[in-house]
Amino acid sequence: MPGLTRRMAEFAAGLSYESIPPQAAATAKLGITDCTGAMFAGRGEPVSKLMMELAQPAQAGEARVLYDRGRARAMDAALVNAAASHCLEYDDATLFHVSAVVVPTVLAEGEACGASGRDLIAAYVAGYETWAELMSRDQDKHHDKGWHPTGVFGTLAAAAAAIRLNRLDGERACMALSLAASMAAGLVANFGTMAKPIHAGRAAQNGILAARLARRGATASPDALEHPRGLLSAISFKGRVRLDEDIAAGRDWHILKHGLSIRRYPMCYSTNRTIDATLGLVERHRFAPEDVSDVEVTMGRAQSLPLRHHRPQTSLEAKFSAEFAVACPIVARRVTLQELDEAFVRKPDVQDLFPKVRVTTVEGIDPDYPLSLLGPHDRVKVTLRNGNVLDSGPLRYAKGHVRNPLSTEELFAKFADCTRGALSRSGSERLFERLQGLEAQPDIETVFG
Amino acid sequence: MPGLTRRMAEFAAGLSYESIPPQAAATAKLGITDCTGAMFAGRGEPVSKLMMELAQPAQAGEARVLYDRGRARAMDAALVNAAASHCLEYDDATLFHVSAVVVPTVLAEGEACGASGRDLIAAYVAGYETWAELMSRDQDKHHDKGWHPTGVFGTLAAAAAAIRLNRLDGERACMALSLAASMAAGLVANFGTMAKPIHAGRAAQNGILAARLARRGATASPDALEHPRGLLSAISFKGRVRLDEDIAAGRDWHILKHGLSIRRYPMCYSTNRTIDATLGLVERHRFAPEDVSDVEVTMGRAQSLPLRHHRPQTSLEAKFSAEFAVACPIVARRVTLQELDEAFVRKPDVQDLFPKVRVTTVEGIDPDYPLSLLGPHDRVKVTLRNGNVLDSGPLRYAKGHVRNPLSTEELFAKFADCTRGALSRSGSERLFERLQGLEAQPDIETVFG
Repeated sequence: MPGLTRRMAEFAAGLSYESIPPQAAATAKLGITDCTGAMFAGRGEPVSKLMMELAQPAQAGEARVLYDRGRARAMDAALVNAAASHCLEYDDATLFHVSAVVVPTVLAEGEACGASGRDLIAAYVAGYETWAELMSRDQDKHHDKGWHPTGVFGTLAAAAAAIRLNRLDGERACMALSLAASMAAGLVANFGTMAKPIHAGRAAQNGILAARLARRGATASPDALEHPRGLLSAISFKGRVRLDEDIAAGRDWHILKHGLSIRRYPMCYSTNRTIDATLGLVERHRFAPEDVSDVEVTMGRAQSLPLRHHRPQTSLEAKFSAEFAVACPIVARRVTLQELDEAFVRKPDVQDLFPKVRVTTVEGIDPDYPLSLLGPHDRVKVTLRNGNVLDSGPLRYAKGHVRNPLSTEELFAKFADCTRGALSRSGSERLFERLQGLEAQPDIETVFG
Repeated sequence: MPGLTRRMAEFAAGLSYESIPPQAAATAKLGITDCTGAMFAGRGEPVSKLMMELAQPAQAGEARVLYDRGRARAMDAALVNAAASHCLEYDDATLFHVSAVVVPTVLAEGEACGASGRDLIAAYVAGYETWAELMSRDQDKHHDKGWHPTGVFGTLAAAAAAIRLNRLDGERACMALSLAASMAAGLVANFGTMAKPIHAGRAAQNGILAARLARRGATASPDALEHPRGLLSAISFKGRVRLDEDIAAGRDWHILKHGLSIRRYPMCYSTNRTIDATLGLVERHRFAPEDVSDVEVTMGRAQSLPLRHHRPQTSLEAKFSAEFAVACPIVARRVTLQELDEAFVRKPDVQDLFPKVRVTTVEGIDPDYPLSLLGPHDRVKVTLRNGNVLDSGPLRYAKGHVRNPLSTEELFAKFADCTRGALSRSGSERLFERLQGLEAQPDIETVFG
């Protein structure tokens, strides 16, 4: 039986749109639509501007940068667009951030390759399956060793998507995955800084680079994923990696099993259930910030680790703060990009709530989603000054989770919030519809043109 | 006390030429000279051409590509030049391949920054110390986990060199090292393929990218090297890493302790002692290939691992073959670029010798050079058909090793071999002299112009 690298390469290279289950194609379109919105939302951020300066956009480039900011080589366009997609923490949150890497790769390399909408969907699915297949082969969490899955598996997923778009043969596809394995990087230590969206950008860029090197004849070992001195061993915490087992990708589809969890709030996904729970209490009981005497939040331990900022002062800190995830809905009765703003974060009634919030953590991971870091549920208990205790009860699936999905209207409301300032209402509606009907689009130009 | 990342950043940012011991500066010049030769030798190789196509050289670029193949952005020039420097296995072999990454970085970014010869030397030393400091903090071999030090530590070393050339302040230097830590990659599984020189190229390119991102204000965590979820933990085999200890770089200079081991033969460094031992026997006893009945080679076990090709057919396979390291000197009485050629490798008298060679391995690493993979010594015993046994005795330091250095004439002989076809004899002499007197050169143009 061929090894893991070769089997994954052949899977990615040979994936036809027709072989993809309808539910998988629908998830791909959801990811592409939602992540395109996140890219629009992030395109004015400092890290996006910085990456754009380095990428040297050129009018003659292969792919568009940030929709309307010029053109560049596909790998540079993907770099900029992926950083923009991830920098606001508003992209989706499955397998960490699968779409923030794969969607910019698919759009940029798809434009360069003249791909159809069906090609883009197939390439997305190839990327998703590759990421999930590799990530699921270690029983220990890559985070615990320091590896950021978005950077590491993102590089392989982007390579798989680029393999599909370039229609590499199995041998060259194998070289591409092994070359990508030698570029996979990204550290948890750099969370909460610009380096984190740069991980997504680099993963997208690296994946395209690997595919293009292989297309031109660059060689690598045919077993760089599963070799004892290969990627899966190298990044493993304890070395307990399944290297020999046959692949599930394309058979027992990962994308059907894990789906896609859309972020409804532009915050670290670890906070999304707490926000829903708090919003529910505020809407039901209509209390004011000054009524609050104490808040107890319960969440998973691993889930709580990124939430390092207990007294956030900036919007980036607020995104990684359980305290802000409680204070924001109580003060503003919503959590949108407008609240993720330094002026709002520093408001006295927001800041006054922070010391009243206590976080209690529990062990365990949702058994149905073992590749996630979320605990079994979140729960928020608000004690008011009048002594009343308001209890959200356990909340397992945030609005937007694959088991609690957004309606099309809710998905569009987020998309409209993201594209505000860049597109007119009718332009936003048109782009949303085209992305949702991607299988009928002949090329990228008809989607974005 | 500031953490490791901050201290290394401040060291690199603040390193003045005047503070560098004369022996360290001499080693830097040796590395720059010898690696420039290796780059010339490698510039016609397929991987060099391939990287050049991708880098899109432009006449208006900041730095020269492969001496006379046009110009490109500094990070692209460094990418191409580093791949060319390493692809023939003819660059130096200290800390794996420190110069193959650092020299192309120093030359390309030095040209972009208008650096003087003294700046280039200081930047080289900053890169060397960074690499050695980080590599020496783990008691286990990074190879054993699958990490190729040239790709991983090379990225940090290139960043340190670029920090020095860009004269970043301590804070931005710290961001640059942390950004580089998120780009460090490269797998042992990809040895013996084009991916290996691409590791060197990417390390050089990544280091410059990290410094330039930091210069423009990109942020990262100030502790991405030593954080529990940072680089040194992430790449560690068993987690036995010294994270808190003060740095030796710039005080107890690593470059004085480890020096530079120049490769005299364009082969994996693991073979260089065996070649010397065999050449010594051939020169003393003047036997012919057909006289040989049996050869026993003894070397270190870790040293022997890259030598995977027992019946090499191509020059790349021959570079990683103990059998060829014996056969070549017996047949040709020398090992130069001309023998590392498919026609020579396939000669019947060369191939006939392979089955006669047995490799015996011993445990242990040279205690004076614990960062190397070489065993305590190599030894070659040739049994002739007439029954005579010729014994090299134990050979500890190959010609070119820091304890058995090449004379200036021998160094130039290698340089002339490397630059043949690209430079006239007088052009080669002139460039060699300028590189050896680098501290007097005002800029890159006067060196290469």
